[in-house]
Formats: sequence, structure tokens, C-alpha cells
Amino acid sequence: LKILITAGGTSERIDQVRSITNHSTGRLGKAIAEAFSSQDCQIDYVTTRSALLPEAHEGLTLHFIETTQELFNQLQELLTKHSYDAVIHSMAVSDFTPVMNVSEEDFLEKWQGRPIEQESFNNWLAEPSDKETETKISSNTQHLMLIMKQNPKIISYLRQWQPNTLLFGFKLLVDVPKEELLAVAQKSLEKNKLDFVLANDLSQIKDSLHRGYLLDKNGNVEEAETKAKIAELIYQKVKDRKENVR
Amino acid sequence: LKILITAGGTSERIDQVRSITNHSTGRLGKAIAEAFSSQDCQIDYVTTRSALLPEAHEGLTLHFIETTQELFNQLQELLTKHSYDAVIHSMAVSDFTPVMNVSEEDFLEKWQGRPIEQESFNNWLAEPSDKETETKISSNTQHLMLIMKQNPKIISYLRQWQPNTLLFGFKLLVDVPKEELLAVAQKSLEKNKLDFVLANDLSQIKDSLHRGYLLDKNGNVEEAETKAKIAELIYQKVKDRKENVR
Repeated sequence: LKILITAGGTSERIDQVRSITNHSTGRLGKAIAEAFSSQDCQIDYVTTRSALLPEAHEGLTLHFIETTQELFNQLQELLTKHSYDAVIHSMAVSDFTPVMNVSEEDFLEKWQGRPIEQESFNNWLAEPSDKETETKISSNTQHLMLIMKQNPKIISYLRQWQPNTLLFGFKLLVDVPKEELLAVAQKSLEKNKLDFVLANDLSQIKDSLHRGYLLDKNGNVEEAETKAKIAELIYQKVKDRKENVR
Repeated sequence: LKILITAGGTSERIDQVRSITNHSTGRLGKAIAEAFSSQDCQIDYVTTRSALLPEAHEGLTLHFIETTQELFNQLQELLTKHSYDAVIHSMAVSDFTPVMNVSEEDFLEKWQGRPIEQESFNNWLAEPSDKETETKISSNTQHLMLIMKQNPKIISYLRQWQPNTLLFGFKLLVDVPKEELLAVAQKSLEKNKLDFVLANDLSQIKDSLHRGYLLDKNGNVEEAETKAKIAELIYQKVKDRKENVR
């Protein structure tokens, strides 16, 4: 088996001493890697320097990234160069990256007395001046506005880079009804042409509990209650597919 | 000796899965604690769960915080309850904490066609509606504005909570001329009634190098080039003061 796993959470630099970070510890990705590592399996494992790592073994190759853009570049390279039996994208990806920060005084200086119009405002957001993108944060203001732009949606590229792989996405929501969680996950599965999506809710992840629902394209849902069980479920799907393909 | 050390970097939650984090590793604070730990010394060590920790020993008590507000509360409690020979505040503190995030669409919906006026704009920044402070981030917008408000400046409270301690502040700048670094540090020393300030520049912190300048109230500057040497310099100042007081 040859598989690719992403794990942990990206972070986006605000300046040289501050970042916006996704909290994901990498623990689930580690469990998944370990479910595969007892087998004869080559794993490309894409993660961050602050994530927990799976135990090292011969078949495991680590690739470290920090930002969403770096993750994009790394996955594009790996997925267009190699062929994987499965791609398991468990990493929490930052949706936005900071482009400028503006004190309330500077914002008022720019906009005060002018009616805000869509075009000029959008232009300013999209093309801040060099002065405005200086990343140094002034600490002498009551309010600071951090302007962020949307990152590429990495999950939407995976199928195009790797048309025949068994593709697993992940959807984490916070404290929503189970129906909503499954519906949102199902939508992501369809939109991004995934084979499976693991839906989970932060309020159901605690100590040894990690409740996850594995959805497939046909509307089947399987449930697991620990990271090891989730990992095992995913491993079985990859193994079944491999055996059916033979 | 009874001392208090802060180390590492605070982080501020944006929502339940994202934070703004200061990168400080806690390595300098660890070196400082270890310079004191061979002595007969009680150390209250205030840090975060992601920071490197000094080696445990009998005199060392750890206190974990996450946000600037938690740091404020913890320091207020310790510094108004106990008396310390020295307070060494090396933690990197977030200047701002997120209060709301607004998509460009929502911002336009609120402000479009209206001239921005200082009073109404400041009121909005200071008192966002409940809807606007919902912390869930929509990912379906090109630009997101994260509005942050200033945190209390912790260093300005330390002297008032602990009038007679030997008080060390830290000033980290990024790639500035030495004269500017020393001038900014000197200003912090005066403004916050510190006894010493350790001035350092991120561009001079690399591998084993950590260049630091220890400034005192009389304009004296001592230089060190490693974390261990900085820690030793600070330890010597505390020891000298203790001996002179006796």
C-alpha cells in the first residue's frame, strides 16, 4: 500500500512573532498512521513541527509544512508525482491568511467622512498599499483590524491531482446536532468528490472519547468512539478497496 | 531567594479551534529558572502548556495560563499575596484579543452608503452586537476582518503590585539598529518603573546565539550572547541586590 496522510493544523503568520494557529494536535493523524504502519505500507505523512508524530518506521516519510500555501505546494508536488492507494486528509487547514492590519485611527484616517462603496472598499481589501501591508503591529491603539484573505480550498484540489485514489476528507464542527454534522459532511463529500468523509464534533472529543462518523458516497454511515477505532475503520476501507481492485 | 518568572507566549482564542499565538518557545525563561535552581530558591514559574519547561525541582512551582487576561489574574494574585526578591517577566504577551470577525459582505451591509464617522465607528468597535461577536468564522467570503481590542499592559501593573521587588522586563524587537533597540528598552524601563530591562532583537537570536543587552536605571548596559549567559547576568543582579540588602 502507498498512502498519504495529512495531520495537525496549519498556521498563518501575522508577523515575525505572531501566528494564527489551528489547534489540532495531530493525535488522530498519528493514530491513522499507526493503524497502517504495522502493514507493508509506504506512508507520506504531511504535518507541522508542532504536531504529535507517529512512531518512526522504515516506510514512514515525514514532510513538514507550516502554512496553507505550503501545504498546497507540498500536496500538489506529491499528488502529481506519485500514485497513492489512499489519501487521508485529516489536517485542519486555515481558511484565511492575514494580509494587513490597520489601527482604528488609520482606518478612520482613510475612510472618515467618505461613504463606503462596494467597489472602492473591495479594491482596498484586495490591494492594500505597501504601507498598509507592513506587518508590524502598533500596540498604541484601542482596536486593531486584522484583514485576512481566503486561502485556496485544498480539499477541492485533491481529486483533480489524484483521480483514482481512495480519498478521505474530514469535517470538524463544534457542538451541532448530529443531523447537521452529517449533512454538512455529506455536502463536502459530494462537492469535493471524496470517497469518504469522517465527520466529528469537537464537543464529542474529550479524554479517550473521539466520536466519529464515517460517511460514504452511498449514504452509509459507520460510527466509532475512539481515535484507534476511527483509524481502524479507515484502514479497513483502504484494505477492502485494495483487495477488490486486485 | 523567592522569585517569580514568566516565560513562553500567551495566546488568544479566536474561536474554539483557532488562536492567535506568540511564538516564544519559553527557552530563555527555562534558562533563567535553571540559573536559579541550583541555589536555595523558591520559584513561582508562570507559563503556558506549549512552552518548554525547566527541569523540575523541589523549589519550582508551575502555574499555567493561556491568555493575557489569565496572566493578569495569575500575576495579580501571586504578586499581591507574596513578596518576591525578584520578578522576571520574560513572557511574550499578546497586545490584542479578538472580539469579533466580520466578512466583507457583512461589513458592507452595515456600512455601505453611510459616511464613516468617528463616533459611530468607535461605538461599533467597542460594542459589537451579539450577532457580530458570534465567534464562528464563515469560510465563504474572500476577506474577513478580525477586530481585536487592546489587552491590559501587564508590565505596567507589576511595580504597583510589588513595590519593592527587583523588577526585570524584556523588550523584543525585530531587525532594528542597536541604538533604536536600546532607546525603546530604556523608555519601557522608565515608563514601567523597572530595575532592569533585557533588550533583544529577533534577528540576533539563532541556533546557540541569543544576543541580549541588560540595561539598568543608571544607563549601564551589559551584553551577553547566549541564553545561559543572559540567565547568569540576571541571576548575578538578584544575588548582588540580596547581599546588599542584608
